[in-house]
Formats: sequence, C-alpha cells, structure tokens
Amino acid sequence: MESPYEIDADATVRRAGDHLWRGEVSDRWSIGPYPNGGYVLTIALNAIRQEVPHPDPFSVTAHYLSPPQHAPIDVEVEVIRSGRAHSTAMARMLQDGRERVRVLANYGDHSQSQGPTIVQAEPPPMPPPEELPVSDPTGPSPNGLVIAIRERFEIRPAPGTMGWARGERTGRAEVGGWLRFADGRPMDTHVLPLVADSMPPAIFDATAGGWVPTLELTVHVRARPAPGWLRCWFRTRFLVDGYLEEDGEVWDERGHLVALSRQLARLNPAPA
Amino acid sequence: MESPYEIDADATVRRAGDHLWRGEVSDRWSIGPYPNGGYVLTIALNAIRQEVPHPDPFSVTAHYLSPPQHAPIDVEVEVIRSGRAHSTAMARMLQDGRERVRVLANYGDHSQSQGPTIVQAEPPPMPPPEELPVSDPTGPSPNGLVIAIRERFEIRPAPGTMGWARGERTGRAEVGGWLRFADGRPMDTHVLPLVADSMPPAIFDATAGGWVPTLELTVHVRARPAPGWLRCWFRTRFLVDGYLEEDGEVWDERGHLVALSRQLARLNPAPA
Repeated sequence: MESPYEIDADATVRRAGDHLWRGEVSDRWSIGPYPNGGYVLTIALNAIRQEVPHPDPFSVTAHYLSPPQHAPIDVEVEVIRSGRAHSTAMARMLQDGRERVRVLANYGDHSQSQGPTIVQAEPPPMPPPEELPVSDPTGPSPNGLVIAIRERFEIRPAPGTMGWARGERTGRAEVGGWLRFADGRPMDTHVLPLVADSMPPAIFDATAGGWVPTLELTVHVRARPAPGWLRCWFRTRFLVDGYLEEDGEVWDERGHLVALSRQLARLNPAPA
Repeated sequence: MESPYEIDADATVRRAGDHLWRGEVSDRWSIGPYPNGGYVLTIALNAIRQEVPHPDPFSVTAHYLSPPQHAPIDVEVEVIRSGRAHSTAMARMLQDGRERVRVLANYGDHSQSQGPTIVQAEPPPMPPPEELPVSDPTGPSPNGLVIAIRERFEIRPAPGTMGWARGERTGRAEVGGWLRFADGRPMDTHVLPLVADSMPPAIFDATAGGWVPTLELTVHVRARPAPGWLRCWFRTRFLVDGYLEEDGEVWDERGHLVALSRQLARLNPAPA
C-alpha cells in the first residue's frame, strides 16, 4: 500500500538492477533551484535500508558533490559489512552519469540497544508548541529565494530565534523551535537526517542571508522518536573565511534526544 | 628525506599499485590490543593526500568495521570528484582481504579560503601549559590496559578533568588540556584527525572506564594550526543504552579553532 505522505512519495525508490535503485528528485523540497541536502539523502537511505538487515540508521554521512537536478536519480548501494549489531553501507547517487552525492551509513537496531545511560544535557528550553506562533511558510525568505521545503513542515519558532523573519536579526547564529511534517506524517528514524537539515540556516540571524550549500552532513540517530512534535535547536559557532559548521539537536516530545547533527557548509551570496 | 618523527614513520604509505597504497599499523598508537582509530585514519589520509590536488583535509569521516591488526595494511583510494575549490575521495583499508576502515574525505586549501568570519565561541578556559602538571604517561590507566598511545603525546590536563587519574572521578563527562607530540613534531592539518581521537575518553570521568570502540569519527579541519601547543576539549553529553557521542574542539596557541570533531562510540567492558 502506498504511503499517503509527501516524503514517502517523493523519496521512494524502486529496484532498477543489482544493488541499483531509482528515485526521482522532486521540486517540493528545494531552496530556490537547489534540492535540500537532507531530502536527497533520504532517497539514498530509502535504498540502503532495503539492502541492510538492521532497521535504524545510526550514523549517516553525505558528501555533496554537485547539485542534484529535479529529475530521476540512480542510487548504487554497496553493503560493506553486515555484522551482528551493525551493518555499514555506501551509496552513490548519479544523474546523467555524474555523481551528485556519496553516502556512508551505519545501521543498527535501536530496539536492541543495551548498556548504561548517563545524560548530561537538557532539552533546549522553549514554550510548548501550542503557545508559539505558527511560522508562515509563505512569509519573507531571507535570501529572496522561493523556498518550497517550507511548505512541507510546520514550524513553531522558539522565542528569540528566526529574528530575520521579523526584520530583527538577533545577532546570535541560532535557530530553534518545534517541527512536524505539514501533512501529519509520523516521525521515524529514517526521516531524522532530513529533519536535521530542514530549518532555516542558523547563520541567518547573524549575517545577511545567502545560499548555504552543504559540503558534508553527518547525523547520528540516537533513538526512535515518540509520536508528536520534534524539539529542534541548531547553532553555528564558527563562520570562518566563509565556511561554517551547523550543529543540531533533535529531541522528541518525551524529552529524549533522538538525533545529533553537524554539517560543514559554505555561506555564499544568494544565486541570481 | 625521511621525517624523524614517530607519526610520520608509523603512518607512512608507499605506492603498491594503481590507486593502491601500503602502510603498516604500528603497535605504538594502541589502547591495549586495539590501534587508535585516529591513528589508523592517518594512514588512510596519507594515501588520499597523494591522490588529490588540494592540500588540506576539510571534512573526514571514518567508519570502523573491524579492529585493525598490528600488521601491513592496504589502502585503496578512489578520487570521487576533483573540483576547483574542493576534491572528494574515498579509501578502503584492508588487511588479509578483510575491510577494516572505510573513509570519506573532502579536501580543500585553507590558504585560499575567503569569506566572512563570525565566531560566537571562546577557547575552553585553562591556565597556560607551563602552569599545569605533566600527565604521567606511565600512570594508572582507567581500564587496566597498556596504553601505548599515551607515550606519543605530552598532555597537560586542564584542572577539573581527568579526575579518574587521581582516583577522584569528577562526574562530568569532559576532558581537556594542552596537547603536543612528545617528540616535538609540528602540528599540521594532516594530524588533526589523530589529535581529535588522542585524549582519554571523556566518559571516563562519569562512569567506570572500559573500552570505547569508535564506530564512526568525523573531523572538520577548520584552519592550519599555529606552531606550539593545541588546546583541546572533549565532551560526552549523551550516553544512551551504551552508545555515546564525543564532541571535540581543538584550538591552537593563537586562540584559533583548528578542528571540530564528533564520534559515535560504544562503551564496552574492558577486554579481558
């Protein structure tokens, strides 16, 4: 039975050969002409998950090589190792014979994880989502681009972040808030890498917005999310000579950390 | 001319075929029987750097598949993309036909980076190295293992960290201090991934020490280090069901950030 949800329709893959899968890059998850990196990664993960024996991504790294087009995309999967607790796989994403993204992923089973737990952090403080204003997906964009991906999520920005959307840049390179799919799709471990790349860049509250292409994105999926909203926080501490990291935390409604993310990106002027 | 330094001798590779390099895993960088993950990664990077046109690693990810032995190791390099500002490469590390480590790396040129700089963080506070006691590389180990890698570095632990070494666990999963090579080897961008894996696990000040095998390590090399000591800080916030992340910052003596690191690891009982 086909999923009624946007991300499942837009990131689905079908078998096209031996360890070869085919998807299509939709234009519904783009920033201007550029497909969101987390979205494109989700297509690759949908191929990998069908080749590895473990159910959850644990650590996923994507290197972005050239901007994917809104067009069919091939995903070649190599299962590198399949062990008892973990499996490791690689994927190449190709369009017109040109590689767009290279992915390395470790999969495991969060329902089987056992061992000690010590947490020395608190969820980022913010009022409950129902007390926060809805972010208008048709509101001003920080860089003049049409941002289709904004219509895919409902975001309730945390107070003191996304100041640029109100014409009042806060000066702090942080963005946070509650997030869920606009169409109500339940969260699971497979879409957490997408979530980790789905809020506006944290750097936009510290300097004039531009285009922030991801060079490399790594997401640690640490637990299966509970139903409901995700509580997200992203921060850039070091913009140096045009390069920046963005560090993310994603927590679920129970107050459990479900993902940690970090990406290396460039801050470029917005494309003309 | 051969380098007189330990890391250069122990992580060197020689050409063994088309995109094939051969090194040898030394026993001088091990924790008990296990070679340090950052050290083994350095062997792969020494192969990759000879195949890509850019001089500095920018983002490096290693997935550890099976523990390397103290023995010769093959490194197969694939240059995935070679562009104007960046090149991307992959490496497979094999012993006895079994893959041990898979590496993905983005290289660039830090001497050519241009763009805005905004830093919203301070170096971790600690007294200058000459005011701090020298960590005894022959002192007690937290897990009863012989830790050869400790003899490769001089470490001046920051006050309030490495309490386990004094029999007074601090309870905070943090470790920091000044670090340099024991043999005086100058720092450069090629050894920063090693440095990011070279301090004792931060978790040892929060719970009984064991063996902390790295599943995945990602290091962003953000600048070329100035001569002298490196100021390091590592922290684990989330040990959940036996899995932990360790986040690292490495700064140089000028007070510039030179690397950010994160690894996903397991906390296991010490091997018998």
